[in-house]
Amino acid sequence: MSIISLLSDFGHKDPYVAEMKAVILSINPEAHIVDITHEIEKFNIRMGAYVLASATPYFPPNTIHVAVVDPGVGTKRRPIIAETNRSLYVGPDNGLLMLAAHKEHIKKVYQIDNPKYMLSQVSKTFHGRDIFAPAAAHLTGGIKPSDFGPAIHDYILPEFAKPQAKRGELIGEVLHIDDFGNIVSNITLEDLESARFHEGNSLLVTLGSKTLNIQFCSAYGEVPSGTPLALIGSSNFLEVAVNQESASKIFKAKVGDTFHISVPASS
Amino acid sequence: MSIISLLSDFGHKDPYVAEMKAVILSINPEAHIVDITHEIEKFNIRMGAYVLASATPYFPPNTIHVAVVDPGVGTKRRPIIAETNRSLYVGPDNGLLMLAAHKEHIKKVYQIDNPKYMLSQVSKTFHGRDIFAPAAAHLTGGIKPSDFGPAIHDYILPEFAKPQAKRGELIGEVLHIDDFGNIVSNITLEDLESARFHEGNSLLVTLGSKTLNIQFCSAYGEVPSGTPLALIGSSNFLEVAVNQESASKIFKAKVGDTFHISVPASS
Amino acid sequence: MSIISLLSDFGHKDPYVAEMKAVILSINPEAHIVDITHEIEKFNIRMGAYVLASATPYFPPNTIHVAVVDPGVGTKRRPIIAETNRSLYVGPDNGLLMLAAHKEHIKKVYQIDNPKYMLSQVSKTFHGRDIFAPAAAHLTGGIKPSDFGPAIHDYILPEFAKPQAKRGELIGEVLHIDDFGNIVSNITLEDLESARFHEGNSLLVTLGSKTLNIQFCSAYGEVPSGTPLALIGSSNFLEVAVNQESASKIFKAKVGDTFHISVPASS
Repeated sequence: MSIISLLSDFGHKDPYVAEMKAVILSINPEAHIVDITHEIEKFNIRMGAYVLASATPYFPPNTIHVAVVDPGVGTKRRPIIAETNRSLYVGPDNGLLMLAAHKEHIKKVYQIDNPKYMLSQVSKTFHGRDIFAPAAAHLTGGIKPSDFGPAIHDYILPEFAKPQAKRGELIGEVLHIDDFGNIVSNITLEDLESARFHEGNSLLVTLGSKTLNIQFCSAYGEVPSGTPLALIGSSNFLEVAVNQESASKIFKAKVGDTFHISVPASS
Repeated sequence: MSIISLLSDFGHKDPYVAEMKAVILSINPEAHIVDITHEIEKFNIRMGAYVLASATPYFPPNTIHVAVVDPGVGTKRRPIIAETNRSLYVGPDNGLLMLAAHKEHIKKVYQIDNPKYMLSQVSKTFHGRDIFAPAAAHLTGGIKPSDFGPAIHDYILPEFAKPQAKRGELIGEVLHIDDFGNIVSNITLEDLESARFHEGNSLLVTLGSKTLNIQFCSAYGEVPSGTPLALIGSSNFLEVAVNQESASKIFKAKVGDTFHISVPASS
Repeated sequence: MSIISLLSDFGHKDPYVAEMKAVILSINPEAHIVDITHEIEKFNIRMGAYVLASATPYFPPNTIHVAVVDPGVGTKRRPIIAETNRSLYVGPDNGLLMLAAHKEHIKKVYQIDNPKYMLSQVSKTFHGRDIFAPAAAHLTGGIKPSDFGPAIHDYILPEFAKPQAKRGELIGEVLHIDDFGNIVSNITLEDLESARFHEGNSLLVTLGSKTLNIQFCSAYGEVPSGTPLALIGSSNFLEVAVNQESASKIFKAKVGDTFHISVPASS
């Protein structure tokens, strides 16, 4: 049990990520640290929750996931450890951890308040380094989650809407726009099949002020370069893409926008 | 044999790179993963091939290099393993691996088609995670390249032009523009010496719409700050740089542009 | 003694960082490499020195820190190893290493001139790969700093000004602007307390052409979203921030600018 993953909105130009790694290695030099990403949009807890929940199913059981998107650092928001059937999650009690943890069934959530497992000086601006990194390192050393503080039950869950189906329409929202410009919705294959949209069909997709009739494909390369398409992406959500180009440049969608699907008039 | 390098065009903000690492560590927790880069320009196979071929000679023998710049994912393009005298290369059959592999002498190339060494669910959008990462991890565990599928001979080779010499001129092209703005050509020291250009000379360099008379130096600091120069860069190609500034801002060259060298009239 | 940290201005798109790691692992496959950052502003030695000195106190003793912001590569500037009471620093003799090394008490500084511990071909453009990476790897293998070359005493120290106090004013400068847009000064808590500025007070802060009356807080979340504040940041310097937004967008300050603090007229 020595893999620790890290996710944050710290970016790469500052010493912050390295300070967390250095603290971990000072406590457990054998810890195997893996970055998920440090380019979550600043303060965007929902984006952090989505990316964390996408990545963690692929990690080995007993991985310790540390996530820090933490606008409330130093205020009353609590530092927590969530124990699931598969992993441990360490971070702020602001919903960030809970989309991922919930998918693995949450067993217990503990508040971290035992100063024994924090740095000797705890700042009010950087709990990633002073509380979460040491907690993760001590967890790899066999300290139990319950040793860090009391179990709590009123932890914050993130809000993610479910898509709505009505007469030949599906109304979801934009969950994420990836670095390729692919626009990922909250609509799953099951949602689509219940609403009778199937691969090979055309879909009328409305995103932002644009409505386009596009093909529901299974791979990006099934349409010519520069052509928009829809497909079930690698996180199992419907996404709109453009083969070898950026869908977000065409649709100018942003996270949270409505993602509307219906049957084209002609089909 | 447990070092695995990764190169891709995935960027850093999404869960994709972490998912590949998580898959590798789930199969072989002892694998030592080293990122080459994940900032290859989206879909730019030539840039990926160039960067991969620059980095791999410095890795220890028996390193497994996984590279994913893969616009054809999910179509008929094959996943392959190339075995060279020095390393193994895992990725799509689109030329990406072959500039690097060719420099090390290619022994055999195998198609990956054995589902035993893939994730149980293989998406049509993310073979990096579902096919290439597991293949690399299984290779570190002693599975032989020939266990993954049949040898193939019709793999794709990338096209890289050779510079042309004619009467006191050398006509090459821009191979790469690095993060410093240094403009790297496909012209080697041997090409230059055959054409009688030597360190210490002045060169008349034409790139884009600009022609400048610049010094052929051996180090950036041999000219004053802000002054353009030419030198043999760390990848052994002629590059145009500006001491402590960016040559690409002055020359506005892009990859593939003609890189023309001749003797200044006055020298 | 096998943790090696890396800091540079190389960015992430080129093969340069990977080449350094590959060289290290070719010499010592057991080395544990941790990136501090590779996004130091190109050629900005002061920024590199600041970030290095922020991160290194959190690493375990005996870590080997390799830092490369090196506009003088290939000229007469010397490659050096600085030995402190806590760590080893490897890089160019241009001041980059010395803010961090000085905080740990410098014992000896050695010039690296023994070709036995360099790559067999040393370029004049990339000592990170050809001299510093191999030096660090050999240091983890038990080679002594004194084996690399002679002790030197005329190494370069970076210049960092001390803030000036006069009648109810403190005049410092901008040391760093982080990825959140927080503007970090060179003013410490001790400087503030000597000049009778205390947490809970209002401060009149002048940065660039703007003067604002802001609260001296202890956490970002103590003021409403979008409100500027001052606090002692995680590196123990006074910084100006905006809760959940970017102070650098409001103040448009840049590194080196004057950072002026006084008592608001009304308080």
